[in-house]
Parts: sequence; structure tokens; C-alpha cells
Amino acid sequence: MIIIGERINGMFRDIAQAIKERNPKVVQEWAKKQEENGAHYLDINVGPGSPEPVEAMKWLVEVTQEVTDLPLCLDSTKYDAIEAGLKLCKRPAMINSVPAEMPKMERVFAMAAEYGAEVIGLAMNEEGIPKDSERRVALAMELVATADAFGIPIDSLYIDPLVLPCNVGQDHGPEVLKTLQQIKLLSDPPPKTVVGLSNVSQGTKRRELINRVFAVMAMACGLDAAIADACDDELMEAVATARILLNMDIYCDSYVEVFKQSNR
Amino acid sequence: MIIIGERINGMFRDIAQAIKERNPKVVQEWAKKQEENGAHYLDINVGPGSPEPVEAMKWLVEVTQEVTDLPLCLDSTKYDAIEAGLKLCKRPAMINSVPAEMPKMERVFAMAAEYGAEVIGLAMNEEGIPKDSERRVALAMELVATADAFGIPIDSLYIDPLVLPCNVGQDHGPEVLKTLQQIKLLSDPPPKTVVGLSNVSQGTKRRELINRVFAVMAMACGLDAAIADACDDELMEAVATARILLNMDIYCDSYVEVFKQSNR
Repeated sequence: MIIIGERINGMFRDIAQAIKERNPKVVQEWAKKQEENGAHYLDINVGPGSPEPVEAMKWLVEVTQEVTDLPLCLDSTKYDAIEAGLKLCKRPAMINSVPAEMPKMERVFAMAAEYGAEVIGLAMNEEGIPKDSERRVALAMELVATADAFGIPIDSLYIDPLVLPCNVGQDHGPEVLKTLQQIKLLSDPPPKTVVGLSNVSQGTKRRELINRVFAVMAMACGLDAAIADACDDELMEAVATARILLNMDIYCDSYVEVFKQSNR
Repeated sequence: MIIIGERINGMFRDIAQAIKERNPKVVQEWAKKQEENGAHYLDINVGPGSPEPVEAMKWLVEVTQEVTDLPLCLDSTKYDAIEAGLKLCKRPAMINSVPAEMPKMERVFAMAAEYGAEVIGLAMNEEGIPKDSERRVALAMELVATADAFGIPIDSLYIDPLVLPCNVGQDHGPEVLKTLQQIKLLSDPPPKTVVGLSNVSQGTKRRELINRVFAVMAMACGLDAAIADACDDELMEAVATARILLNMDIYCDSYVEVFKQSNR
């Protein structure tokens, strides 16, 4: 599974402060730490309250790229900020994210085509997040069809079925797992799949436990990627183990360590 | 998920010795310990080298039932030992196990019908364990059809797709997960499913990690039961979490403790 390190996000107080003060140290430390622990991409999010999201995104992309060669996942609802970031990315990036709505899909897929970026498409639209897997899969199909119309290779599209916290949206859990299975039947090659892992445990008492159990259950249903805490060692161990059990990596006694170095 | 505690088994040295000396203390301690940690059934196995399996099974059943009301899972390839045990069981028991072979199925299903027992049916026959899911499912169908002919309620049949150690039979892992999903499509109601969990990690360095990751991945694919180490707290936590995420139990902050008491 592809781990997109979640930590460079203005929602975290240390990152918000670093952006405000244009102090690269904290950002670069998190970049290196996540890479060392096995992240394959780094999510870059200026945070919800940024007064100048375009400039903040440009700065974050630049200081992150000074210390790592990992590809970036530009995470914003402000597409101008994403586009400004894409222009600076040294390696093809991922756009996080677009719902199954026009004209947002037009804007994002056109941008992805221009910059050779991958895209995270959300199984939601103006009406919100559907409860059942059937409707989520229908929205995934809209994303696939629109991406295809813009010439995006389908395996550059990551569908996010949208996980809710298990203490408030418990009935969504099995629907998300079913959606993951069904997305793999939509096309050949199928789109990839991704979740924002930490959402599933929001507001619960056993966050890490819930995150890692959901991660491997979702992998058994075809999950390809997760925006997640790459510095959660037990999560990374569980993911490495699931890859062994799914016959994606060859077993050796040190398979956990090998997995953590697989981004190199 | 139903946890069938694996610990009363003559393969373990302390149990082998207890059987030899007819010393009930160790057996009864393990019975109580597994029950307290949340086991729903207790597996009873006299071990591979027992010189008098029928008498040993009778003794194990009796001393176990002195301290617990949990249903028993009588585990032997010697059907006379299982039948002797069934006669003594105070609650309907489970028979572990029968392959998809005549005349073994006739003997076991007839016994199950007579004593109202559940049965674990193995997805294997004279030719061994198949490599692919298609053949495993075909054997499961033979078990379903034969059980039905003997009047066994189909949800009293537990199909074991047979898990191999991931360091020697790694390609079996995804096939077992696929088999679990497909078994649920065989009939309505479908048979239940079970695995001998510890097999998956035999000979590996990270046994508990591999066991619990496989358990929850298999639950996401429809696994109903596992013969497992009920005293592995991290396994029990992972299973409790998977039940929350599959919307089988209602979330509360103390869901792990609630799960462990669910056998009462």
C-alpha cells in the first residue's frame, strides 16, 4: 500500500505556526521523519484558515522539496493554490482532491492533464456523501468517465470512497469496504483507491488501533493507498504484514524493515 | 467473530503432561483463563501422540466442563474419540473436523445429526489442499451438499478454507481471502467460515502480528470464527475493533472490554 504522509498540514499547530513565521525547520523535520519511516508521498496542506493559501502552498512545496525527493500530494479545496504548487513540483504530483461535480472536475482534470498529475476523486457530490456502496460506486464511475474524457490514465485516478468516524457513521464502514471491492470492477485497468485513514477514528479513544485495523481490512478489499500517519510504527508494521499476506511482497523475517525502506 | 480457544491441546507440553498424569489443574486453569479473556468455544484436542485418544478425550471433556459452561470444539482425526466426547458434552458441541471425502463425511455428518453438533468442514480431499480459490470453493460446495443431505442446518457448518504458513505458502493467502468471500454466495443462508489462525504464522518471526492482521483481513472477507489464542490480548483487541468497523457491535469507548465479556 502507498502511504501518503499526512503530517505537513496546517491543521497541526506546529505546521500552522511554521507557515505563519515562514520557518522551514519544522516542516523539513516532518518531511524527513516521514520519509525515513516509509512514506511514499507527502501530503501538503496549508490548513483551513490560511489567509494566503497560494503563497503558503508555494512556500511549503519549496521548503519540502529542499530536503526530500518524495512526490507530493497537494491538498487543498483552493484550486489556485494547487496549480501554483504544481508549477513548482519537481516530480509528478498528486492532486487532493476533487468531488464528482462539474465544473470542479473540469478544472482539476484539465490541470492534471497539463501537469501530468495524479488525482484523488471523492465519491461525493453536491448532495453530500452517500450512505450506501451503490451510490458511492456510481459517483466513482462519473469520476472515471470524466477523467478518461480528459485523457487522464485511469490508474492515475485514486477514488476515495470517504470514510466516516466509526463512532458517528458506523453503518458507513461496511459500505466503504464494499465500495473498495466494487471499484476494482469498474474498468480495466481499474482506478486506484485511497482513504483518509485518520478520519475513521476521529473522536474515538483508541485511534491508532482503529486506524491500523481499518487499514488492513480495507487492503483485503483492494485499497491501494492511504493518507495516514507514516510515523505510527504499529500502522506501518500492520501494512507491511498485510502486503505479505496478500502476496504483494515476498516474505522474509525482516519484512517490516524492508517495507519501510521501499520508498527509496 | 467467534473465538475458539486453541490452548487445550496435547500439542502443548503442559497439556500433554496433564493428560498423561490425569491432573486436571492445568487444563482447568487454561479453560478459565480462555473464558475470562473472551473465548466463545474451547477447542479440545488430546494431541497427536496420545496412546488412548478415546479415554483422553473423555477425561478432557469432563474436567473442562467442571469449570466452564462454554461449548466445546472436539478436535481429532479419530472419530471414535469425537463420538465419545459428544456423548459427554452438556451443550451442543462442534466437531473439528472433516475433509470433503467419503466415507468420512458420512460418518461425521451422521454423528453431527445425532448429537445436534456443529461441524468444521475442510476445503481439502484425498488430493490435498488446492492452491486456488475455485477448487477450494468447489470442495466447500461438496461439504454443503453432503451436510444438507444429512439434515445438518447449513449455518451449523463451518467451512475452513485452510490457511498455510505465509513463509512457505504465500500465494495461498489471497486465495483463502477470495474463498471466504465466495463461500458466502454458495447458499442462503450461507455456511459459516472458520480458520485455524495460528497456522498462518507458523515458523515466522512475528507470529502475533501476522495472526492478528490476517484475522481482521479475513473478517473483512466474511470470516465468522477462528481457532485462535484467546489469551493474545492484541488479537482480541483487533477482533473487537474489526467488529466495530463492520458494524457488528455498537461503538462505545470501552468496546474492547465489552467484546471480551460477550461470551457470558
